[in-house]
Amino acid sequence: MASLGHVTPQSLHFAQPLALRSGASLADYTLVYETYGELNAARSNAVLVCHALNASHHVAGSYAGQPRSEGWWDNMIGPGKPLDTDRFFVIGVNNPGSCFGSTGPMHRNPATDRPYGADFPVVTVEDWVEAQARLLDRLGIERLAAVMGGSLGGMQALSWTLQHPERMGHALVIASAPNLSAQNIAFNEVARRAIITDPDFHGGHFYAHGVLPRRGLRVARMIGHITYLSDDSMEQKFGRALRSAELAYSTQEIEFQIESYLRHQGDKFSEYFDANTYLLITRALDYFDPARPFGNDLSAALARATAKFLVVSFTTDWRFSPQRSREIVKALLDNRRDVAYAEIDAPHGHDAFLLDDARYHAIVRAYFERVAREVGA
Amino acid sequence: MASLGHVTPQSLHFAQPLALRSGASLADYTLVYETYGELNAARSNAVLVCHALNASHHVAGSYAGQPRSEGWWDNMIGPGKPLDTDRFFVIGVNNPGSCFGSTGPMHRNPATDRPYGADFPVVTVEDWVEAQARLLDRLGIERLAAVMGGSLGGMQALSWTLQHPERMGHALVIASAPNLSAQNIAFNEVARRAIITDPDFHGGHFYAHGVLPRRGLRVARMIGHITYLSDDSMEQKFGRALRSAELAYSTQEIEFQIESYLRHQGDKFSEYFDANTYLLITRALDYFDPARPFGNDLSAALARATAKFLVVSFTTDWRFSPQRSREIVKALLDNRRDVAYAEIDAPHGHDAFLLDDARYHAIVRAYFERVAREVGA
Repeated sequence: MASLGHVTPQSLHFAQPLALRSGASLADYTLVYETYGELNAARSNAVLVCHALNASHHVAGSYAGQPRSEGWWDNMIGPGKPLDTDRFFVIGVNNPGSCFGSTGPMHRNPATDRPYGADFPVVTVEDWVEAQARLLDRLGIERLAAVMGGSLGGMQALSWTLQHPERMGHALVIASAPNLSAQNIAFNEVARRAIITDPDFHGGHFYAHGVLPRRGLRVARMIGHITYLSDDSMEQKFGRALRSAELAYSTQEIEFQIESYLRHQGDKFSEYFDANTYLLITRALDYFDPARPFGNDLSAALARATAKFLVVSFTTDWRFSPQRSREIVKALLDNRRDVAYAEIDAPHGHDAFLLDDARYHAIVRAYFERVAREVGA
Repeated sequence: MASLGHVTPQSLHFAQPLALRSGASLADYTLVYETYGELNAARSNAVLVCHALNASHHVAGSYAGQPRSEGWWDNMIGPGKPLDTDRFFVIGVNNPGSCFGSTGPMHRNPATDRPYGADFPVVTVEDWVEAQARLLDRLGIERLAAVMGGSLGGMQALSWTLQHPERMGHALVIASAPNLSAQNIAFNEVARRAIITDPDFHGGHFYAHGVLPRRGLRVARMIGHITYLSDDSMEQKFGRALRSAELAYSTQEIEFQIESYLRHQGDKFSEYFDANTYLLITRALDYFDPARPFGNDLSAALARATAKFLVVSFTTDWRFSPQRSREIVKALLDNRRDVAYAEIDAPHGHDAFLLDDARYHAIVRAYFERVAREVGA
């Protein structure tokens, strides 16, 4: 299949403050986004794709002159791909608080004229959905054919169905959950403590000190990475393979390939990811819980949703297990909503939602064919 | 049931160096141990209990004048308990490298006259078994009725059957594994990196700097703690319960009870546990792999074992899952060894082996009744 080829990010400035769930507000802000394909005359074929922790507006295609710059869901989105850009107008937008271009903690705080740092307001999934809705207003898109996301992106798709049910037809909620479990929160909290207690964090104002809390970011990423992979896939990929033929008998040197891999992932991540963004995005994950205002009754919470749903989970995903997706499906069925559910037998754990799995992609493709028929795309 | 009452640790000094698997050796060293019950005239009723990461020779009973000083397996061991000290002579010994009394990294390195720190030699499960065997020599115990341990302690019990098959009758291998999986090693490695990259670690020689790498120890313990509990038990115990009625909308303040619990566990641990010990013991876990010299054929590795076995696992233990125990059972059956296996349906994850579960304790009790009959205890 053809790729989208070269794509170019765009940005829009929003002068009107964004009122946040916390009670604070984000003064003026900029959103960076990308679009692929053409908006049809009826303006009915737009699909919003929401990103997770370590991703951005750069969903598909690549950047001119930058090898290996494919977007994070390039295998899913493009001409002839499951989300077919020959039929749909696809929008990717970087959420505020992130570190890939939209206004975030590394940008100037108008109140202090210095980088926001730890003073960047806490943002929630609901706040991101509002920011995305405003972007659509500016793009002249009243109604989305679909909102799609995996993991934290799936939470945004789910939240769209509750915040703007009238503005969308379909929600694709992939490898996601109606809220984090205690274990999920626990892993987030350890990662945050690693960052916050790194002496180079300087209470979140490390920018002024010319240092980066790399130690904390490395540890945070290593923890995260373990939870993205399945036990089995880690065993298959690394097992107990040693880096050298002989053991070094050392507590500090690398003995096992898995150690080498994790350290490499941690090192890479600590070079490009912002520590305050890590805190903000893990907190947005923690806070998301649409059932809480309904006495933890998810069925009651989802009564507002009128979209049709595709929910997908992966058997070996222990971060957001199939059980969590089935909770969403059950709550939708309790409300007699139109929901298709697929549980994909895949070995790759949570990461599976980003990988090229034939059965998974076939299901998404079939679902978007239905959406295309409905909206005349 | 009656408790053992007050117990007193003892210690023995060993002047002959202990040759280690790494090729290094431990010069002279001291072992701290406790014994409960009476050695019978035939010297046939001794049971060695091996400890895991965060435990010691203080297995049962309590210390005079110290409230809440019960040993870590006090619910299992004592008069009338599953391992009945009215019938058996029970020995608990602190392994070298640990931080509870036996020679460890915080003690004087005779080569430098300063604390060993990071220069304490890397110790393995096999080295600990040798140190334990020497202790038995000094205590005049030629043959053990049984060796028993959970988790890393179970690895020592298993290793005993390979290193000194002629010196033991039974092995009780509980909540253990024939080696660590890639995921197990990964969690250990993240914890080690958190400690080693703490600026207060000073390359393992923090004693001289008057500081402790508490930040790293906290994070290490938090990670460990998540893996000791089952997802379900964490959900039952904490779920998404908030600490206050109102959300603070903060990345640094505690919002959820699970965060408060984990921070508390990390804080406590960082006050008493030694950072170098943490590195040493997690490495001993990583290295243990009796099948490696046999081309990863566990059945071939266990051919030397002549002991009779009780192997116990817990359904919700995802750190050392039942599958790992079944690997041991299968390898023993391949060798036509006498093995009893129990898979206990318990909700508590890896921690279950330390808890008071009626079915689990009944099985251990029944097994020791058999051992008692065999050795005339």
